[in-house]
Amino acid sequence: MLTVNAYAAPSATEPLVPTTIERRDVGPKDVLIAIRYAGICHSDIHTVRGDWGAIEYPQVVGHEIVGEVVEVGSDVSKHAVGDRVGVGCMVNSCRECENCLAGMENYCLKGNTGTYASTDRDGTITQGGYSTHVVVDEDFVLRVPEAIPYEAAAPLLCAGITTYSPLAHWNAGPGKRVAVVGMGGLGHLGVKIAHAMGAEVTVLSQTLSKEEDGKRFGADHYYATSDEKTFETLANQFDLILNTVSATLDLSKYLGLLRLDGALVNVGAPGEPLPLQVFSLFRNRLSFAGSGIGSIGETQEMLDFCAENGIAPEIEMIAADEINDAYERVLKSDVRYRFVIDTKTLETEEAPAA
Amino acid sequence: MLTVNAYAAPSATEPLVPTTIERRDVGPKDVLIAIRYAGICHSDIHTVRGDWGAIEYPQVVGHEIVGEVVEVGSDVSKHAVGDRVGVGCMVNSCRECENCLAGMENYCLKGNTGTYASTDRDGTITQGGYSTHVVVDEDFVLRVPEAIPYEAAAPLLCAGITTYSPLAHWNAGPGKRVAVVGMGGLGHLGVKIAHAMGAEVTVLSQTLSKEEDGKRFGADHYYATSDEKTFETLANQFDLILNTVSATLDLSKYLGLLRLDGALVNVGAPGEPLPLQVFSLFRNRLSFAGSGIGSIGETQEMLDFCAENGIAPEIEMIAADEINDAYERVLKSDVRYRFVIDTKTLETEEAPAA
Repeated sequence: MLTVNAYAAPSATEPLVPTTIERRDVGPKDVLIAIRYAGICHSDIHTVRGDWGAIEYPQVVGHEIVGEVVEVGSDVSKHAVGDRVGVGCMVNSCRECENCLAGMENYCLKGNTGTYASTDRDGTITQGGYSTHVVVDEDFVLRVPEAIPYEAAAPLLCAGITTYSPLAHWNAGPGKRVAVVGMGGLGHLGVKIAHAMGAEVTVLSQTLSKEEDGKRFGADHYYATSDEKTFETLANQFDLILNTVSATLDLSKYLGLLRLDGALVNVGAPGEPLPLQVFSLFRNRLSFAGSGIGSIGETQEMLDFCAENGIAPEIEMIAADEINDAYERVLKSDVRYRFVIDTKTLETEEAPAA
Repeated sequence: MLTVNAYAAPSATEPLVPTTIERRDVGPKDVLIAIRYAGICHSDIHTVRGDWGAIEYPQVVGHEIVGEVVEVGSDVSKHAVGDRVGVGCMVNSCRECENCLAGMENYCLKGNTGTYASTDRDGTITQGGYSTHVVVDEDFVLRVPEAIPYEAAAPLLCAGITTYSPLAHWNAGPGKRVAVVGMGGLGHLGVKIAHAMGAEVTVLSQTLSKEEDGKRFGADHYYATSDEKTFETLANQFDLILNTVSATLDLSKYLGLLRLDGALVNVGAPGEPLPLQVFSLFRNRLSFAGSGIGSIGETQEMLDFCAENGIAPEIEMIAADEINDAYERVLKSDVRYRFVIDTKTLETEEAPAA
């Protein structure tokens, strides 16, 4: 066992604090990663605060992880000491259901093992990336191309793949009109990726406050959803609407923006059920769909795509002791566009006595 | 103008009565059809009773129409006197929107013109098929192959195309597992068509009362949705669920039956919005979709497919003066599986004095 520094939530209601956690010994198929950067995802906050159900504490979150391989198990063949690697939202899956066998382990029928707050196949509770080190099975470790700036790579592991996967699956590309709802951590990457795929990209944001940024990221058009005229102007326009916000939307209004065979794809979800007028799907043979992160194969494809196309998230670097403040700012949407923790600052954190 | 016998609803609350209506003169592109059979669709009942909004009365409904061409306009090239033809749910569209230009006039962005209770492009209110004759633009008239029994062809024009179109669009075929929810007028045709397409077909019906029929129509499996075990047994099984019932379903339960990239496609819709837990779409990257009838091109394709594959609906023939009783039986699901009006019985109906 390896004792490592980390930043953990002691309960659902207290601020995160420095601590130490145990990482398992490096098994034959494991990779020990010295974490260099960890992104802050809105999911981290929902999880530690118990919004998505009760969890065990203390809990370390963080599932946007990049770092260097510092040790590999005897059977590891995919990664070597010194490699720049990444870990995203999952670290294991059953490996035997039809989805795992099809290489879609994010849709593991027994549930993939989340990078944190999840019960791993060995019965332990997984601990995330706000930490100096992590031990992960090599099959769930990604290669991070050198062309991606090191400090900006982390958010690709969740925000990047969560937007890339549906954009690729629903064929965003030349001749397709894609709307991205929300210009936050996910949305701003969705814009960059959809643009790089060749689609005509429109941002649908509450206000026009980030219009300049959106167009710089590759958006062709930018509309405020607070303006009712937007929904008239853009009626029947889009092949795909990628909804990155978890706020409750008036679905019928957004469905009205889709053209024949269009899809409204959610990657964020409100906790409460949304009322859906089924008739609104009959018009234009529409689909309302969901997408959950992406497979390991797709994640590698996304990283390579971002490297080739010069795509990286916009980030704001913080030290570990700024995590709690960053959480408050994320909740106020006051971040452009993703906080990334410099995990070197964890090395000097003093953990309380055990 | 041609005065013809018909059966009309005098109001939302009164029984249908014999009457006469006017059909427009046969224009250059029009076909005059001597109606031979007209199916009774649940939509007819919803419409005359004002369930889907107020309409003008008297109103003749019926959008499952077959008959013979008895006169054609000077510019008609697609149909000739003596042809066996059909008319379905629509009789016109704008012909200039992107969907019409793409041959998907059922999704006309200005709204297709319904066969009844719809305002036609000339401003008149359309009157449906419970009548001896109808005048329709040739572009909205289908060829009914002789291989389809004449008296059974009518329900294909709505129930047939409404199930065929989504089954074809969502690729029901060999290797695909398709569930059909409901074994009524639409559902029983959905089973026959999906089976003929080569899919493995499962019926999900409230009870097992129609199991023998379902298997005779081509279902490989038959399950009762009143049995909770059904939802455990069939978890993650289907590529496509075609929902033909308009009752309010527990969407999460049905979505749980879909495998990776599966779709739950509604062709019936409850009037009230359904609560949809968006998270339930993330599992297996699921879609919830709608489909509205089919294009004229698809409808012809469906008729030819049914002719080639020996598919015809199961019908119960009635005389015009049995329509009101038939409505009550449709509302009680007491029909196996579609009422068809022998419109010859309208010829002898005595219409009240004008």
